Amino acid sequence: MNTIAKTIEWVDGSLRIVDQVRLPLELLYLELKDYRAVIEAIKTLAVRGAPAIGIAGAYAVALAVKEALLLSVDEREDFVRRALEEIEGARPTAVNLSYAVQIQRVIVEGVDVDDVLFARLVDSAGEVHERDKMMCQAIGVNGAELVGQGATALTICNAGALATGGIGTALGVLYVAHEQGKLKRVFSCETRPLLQGSRLTCWELGQAGIDVTLIVDSVAGTLMKSGQVDFVIVGADRIASNGDTANKIGTYNLAVLAEAHGIPFYVAAPETTFDRTLERLPEKIIEERSPEEVTCGFGKRTAPEGVRVYSPAFDITPSELISAFVTDLGVTAGGRGL
Amino acid sequence: MNTIAKTIEWVDGSLRIVDQVRLPLELLYLELKDYRAVIEAIKTLAVRGAPAIGIAGAYAVALAVKEALLLSVDEREDFVRRALEEIEGARPTAVNLSYAVQIQRVIVEGVDVDDVLFARLVDSAGEVHERDKMMCQAIGVNGAELVGQGATALTICNAGALATGGIGTALGVLYVAHEQGKLKRVFSCETRPLLQGSRLTCWELGQAGIDVTLIVDSVAGTLMKSGQVDFVIVGADRIASNGDTANKIGTYNLAVLAEAHGIPFYVAAPETTFDRTLERLPEKIIEERSPEEVTCGFGKRTAPEGVRVYSPAFDITPSELISAFVTDLGVTAGGRGL
Repeated sequence: MNTIAKTIEWVDGSLRIVDQVRLPLELLYLELKDYRAVIEAIKTLAVRGAPAIGIAGAYAVALAVKEALLLSVDEREDFVRRALEEIEGARPTAVNLSYAVQIQRVIVEGVDVDDVLFARLVDSAGEVHERDKMMCQAIGVNGAELVGQGATALTICNAGALATGGIGTALGVLYVAHEQGKLKRVFSCETRPLLQGSRLTCWELGQAGIDVTLIVDSVAGTLMKSGQVDFVIVGADRIASNGDTANKIGTYNLAVLAEAHGIPFYVAAPETTFDRTLERLPEKIIEERSPEEVTCGFGKRTAPEGVRVYSPAFDITPSELISAFVTDLGVTAGGRGL
Repeated sequence: MNTIAKTIEWVDGSLRIVDQVRLPLELLYLELKDYRAVIEAIKTLAVRGAPAIGIAGAYAVALAVKEALLLSVDEREDFVRRALEEIEGARPTAVNLSYAVQIQRVIVEGVDVDDVLFARLVDSAGEVHERDKMMCQAIGVNGAELVGQGATALTICNAGALATGGIGTALGVLYVAHEQGKLKRVFSCETRPLLQGSRLTCWELGQAGIDVTLIVDSVAGTLMKSGQVDFVIVGADRIASNGDTANKIGTYNLAVLAEAHGIPFYVAAPETTFDRTLERLPEKIIEERSPEEVTCGFGKRTAPEGVRVYSPAFDITPSELISAFVTDLGVTAGGRGL
């Protein structure tokens, strides 16, 4: 088997990440030697995907402490406190980031800023990373049970190694099924407007030696009708107690089409993606993306000046359209049933 | 009411067309003074849409005869015969083009190449144009009957004035409904890969003062779920006797989604689009587009080198998903029923 991308690695005291802005044109790594470089990488989307951002943030705290050691003892605590705030603010909506920073803050508080602290923070970041990796692996193994021999999958966006500290969620299932020799082929929706499907998913599945075919999003229905899709698998940004799932725009289209064609529809995500505080997902949680991503997304204007654009970032798929949820804890039936 | 684009006009002995390659950035006209310039405009997609291409081809034959008048009497017939072949070959798959050239050929054959012939060909091309214009108008009037007060429409691709010699087919219905004060709003799918929805439909509806909002194709489902779409209306490339309809890729997705949400789905096309020789549409009539339109459609590569692409140009919507057909002859129920 070919390699799966190592999105994030701690190497010789600095953070090495795949520069996702350069993909799929070239595979370049960024060596992030201080916490500001990590913030910059998060802001420019060189690193993306909520789990990957969380891991990067945890390492960034360690880098901030390392830098503080160059200052006088008096100045260190202030420097670290400010750094923690800056790191947490790099992408305010990424829940994993604030969660990872919180883990590090507990370690930092009330102790001397010294070499021992630095080592503890590196270890702690490593644990955040390792936990995510194991979670991905468990999702992959659990989900692969659902994949039949010689099956073809359809996916959208990038719920893969590039978005996590391991083999990904939806793509994690595909990697394990591929290892087991069961997966025949994957179709990847390009995922307008930002093309995570063509830019990232096609790249990482191709690197792993998986037979991947790119389609524009509106080919999905005709592909299903042709009998070429055995199951659909997607990631999730947030899942309510009732199973309603927020994910990349276009997911709901696929869920409706899958049901109409009698094709199973699976959602793969860590158990922590279930927001038990929410009985259902309010439609208003959906943020809108910038119109420019649609009107001149490719560096060239392709719509008239001033045209109104409606570009929701996510959509909500009701549980009734979901065959099963695949988490690190196991497989549970969705409202549509297994 | 604001103006609807005049895609094609015969002005002072030459053919004036909207340069659709420049849209939506600027509205420029091309003055085509000889038949070769018309062929060039067809090949570069400066003029597109089967009806519009047919009209341009008919005028091109007149321009060829005009040019032949500069030659010696002996050379004229040969020149015109060759020009007819070249014009017909400009886009071999455009049925309207070969049909229009055939009409002109009948006039040309066996008569002297002189001023009288030129005048007859200009008249004949004008009739082809006028017939198309009247057909569009009739479709518009017939379809507007289906539009309720304050209705919002969803459409895909460009079945509008830019594709025809009149107000278009699907968009023709919207223009008439707008004139009647019934149409509230239109959502236009961008229509990957070539973005005819964002480039052309948003432009021409905007020019006509219609409230138009652009969406990426995968927003359609979530938009329907939100209750904002009252009906879907699309054009057609070919319709079989059983009502199965070939149209731009993405049409089938919309038809499945419309049925799932209980939203009427209308197909608007001239009666001549019905291919009575075909009982049903074979899936294999669907040609595939070039992978580059998906992997680097806008001058910038957005997918890994060598990735496999599946990019059908059209899809087939079965009659069971169609509420009604709107033609120049009237409205008839599709398999889904009115």
